[in-house]
Amino acid sequence: MKIKITGVGLYLPPKIETANDIAPKIGKSVDWIIEKSGVRERRVSTIDVDQMGALAGKEALGNGGKPDLILNASGVPKQTIPDTSTFYQRELGFEGIPSFSIHCTCLSFIAALNTAASLIHSGSYKRILIISSDRGTRGRNFDEPESASLLGDGAAAVVIEPADSTDESELIYFDMKTFPSCANLTEVRGGGTHKHPQDPTTTLADNLFTMDGPAVYKVARKEVYRMMLKAMKSTGLKREDVDWVIPHQASGKAVDAYISTGGFAKEKVVSIISKFGNCVAASVPMAFATAVKDGRIKRGDLLLFIGTGAGLSAACALVRY
Amino acid sequence: MKIKITGVGLYLPPKIETANDIAPKIGKSVDWIIEKSGVRERRVSTIDVDQMGALAGKEALGNGGKPDLILNASGVPKQTIPDTSTFYQRELGFEGIPSFSIHCTCLSFIAALNTAASLIHSGSYKRILIISSDRGTRGRNFDEPESASLLGDGAAAVVIEPADSTDESELIYFDMKTFPSCANLTEVRGGGTHKHPQDPTTTLADNLFTMDGPAVYKVARKEVYRMMLKAMKSTGLKREDVDWVIPHQASGKAVDAYISTGGFAKEKVVSIISKFGNCVAASVPMAFATAVKDGRIKRGDLLLFIGTGAGLSAACALVRY
Repeated sequence: MKIKITGVGLYLPPKIETANDIAPKIGKSVDWIIEKSGVRERRVSTIDVDQMGALAGKEALGNGGKPDLILNASGVPKQTIPDTSTFYQRELGFEGIPSFSIHCTCLSFIAALNTAASLIHSGSYKRILIISSDRGTRGRNFDEPESASLLGDGAAAVVIEPADSTDESELIYFDMKTFPSCANLTEVRGGGTHKHPQDPTTTLADNLFTMDGPAVYKVARKEVYRMMLKAMKSTGLKREDVDWVIPHQASGKAVDAYISTGGFAKEKVVSIISKFGNCVAASVPMAFATAVKDGRIKRGDLLLFIGTGAGLSAACALVRY
Repeated sequence: MKIKITGVGLYLPPKIETANDIAPKIGKSVDWIIEKSGVRERRVSTIDVDQMGALAGKEALGNGGKPDLILNASGVPKQTIPDTSTFYQRELGFEGIPSFSIHCTCLSFIAALNTAASLIHSGSYKRILIISSDRGTRGRNFDEPESASLLGDGAAAVVIEPADSTDESELIYFDMKTFPSCANLTEVRGGGTHKHPQDPTTTLADNLFTMDGPAVYKVARKEVYRMMLKAMKSTGLKREDVDWVIPHQASGKAVDAYISTGGFAKEKVVSIISKFGNCVAASVPMAFATAVKDGRIKRGDLLLFIGTGAGLSAACALVRY
């Protein structure tokens, strides 16, 4: 699909929390944290997801004017109703445009990318702002040291527009699969009808993030590898053709697996996990925005967005930037 | 876009709760309830949204086999993570297909219809199952009589496939607008990062549904009327060409406005509000499924899906069934 990413924005909360700061809260050493999560420091936001997302969105829009659709592609909402996208609109001062959310936890951005491309391809919209904004630190369970040491806050945004016929920018390929047999490996059980806040059996832990990291890693590594091979086979592209792998920043080990198992060159895999942690759905666009802003990613580069999320789901998209 | 609704499913929880049952809980008379909400009875589910949605989904799929994508288009999730669509997949026994959510509260189904059409138009998918399943009775605030007397439970589903070139089925038109200046008129403030369950300032009321009905009605009636006129003008169709108006069942008054203000003939407006209440995002596909199942809606009919939702948003879709 002939689409082009015409704008990129990033919001990094100024407050830094290091592995040293978090160690006493989870009763583990700094070495244990680095070894298990790969996260040396993360950002902790004092503003909520709508304000974070709007700041990233504003940067992505630049001087290009109002989008004709806003897609929220985050992991956790601001509140149950109305949709988070409404609050981005309010922050950005856009009255009367449409907005809604695409949700599949950590893969929301990759799914939104393909959805936005389809909505542009069908002529429904011409300038779509995708915003991913997550405040994972709000849902940390300090009684679960491994997952608590992973999460961080951040937001990123992109603008998607139709590409000219002379332009090489396009979304080349998209794939996604969900394996509900692994649904309980990564959860926040509260916040909906299942473990409703007014239900007396709902515990505080039900409202916090829980993950069986090793079990997720075992399935995720295999499924993502298969998906990557299928993407290469289906498109006739080779691993060497990919200029940048932009993975979900699930953990240090998960990002490294694109090198050790995936077979990609270390310098091609964009890793921000050590500095920003796992920022849920914002991780993928934050990694992308980071590498665009520091000049690594250039027009015409072939990008592989890839990752896994709670579900357990795996997804990837090949994009000519 | 050349798409066809090839399957329809409906799940109605067996347990009925009447206005008489609810009157003492909210300290109002049955007459007051009928006058304010138009809801004589509603269904109350004892199974959760994933099981409700899977039952509707199974009926919609019929003998046609596995979909290649499931879209959850509900108002409130089962839990924060993973996405509700994962749990539909688990209930339906579909391992390895993709699924995600489209969310814009009560308009999720209408937005999902246009998104599914675009995803089919772009060749991404060929058989999409859209499920809307809501259990609004879980979030009722009995201290707010008007909104508490509105909500009900239910689920409905449709299958969307490409239409043959010889087939007249298509999605003719879609429009949506969000007005964030009215974001606070309809809310469930809890369930996300804003009023997090672990935050000591979060109250029980924050986790329940609240709506300023009269204020919503005032804006909604005007915006929906404008949107309807624009839809007619943009497509060259007339109100008389529309065979069935399938509105969101916001309240008795809101459904009646399509007749009194909208100018549609009473017998063309599908109303299920009196029997099932406002079932959040499930209302629109439940009204559609009801009128397909009782033989009112026939192949070739022109359908106008239309409504408002928290946001405040308005949306409509013109579909040749």
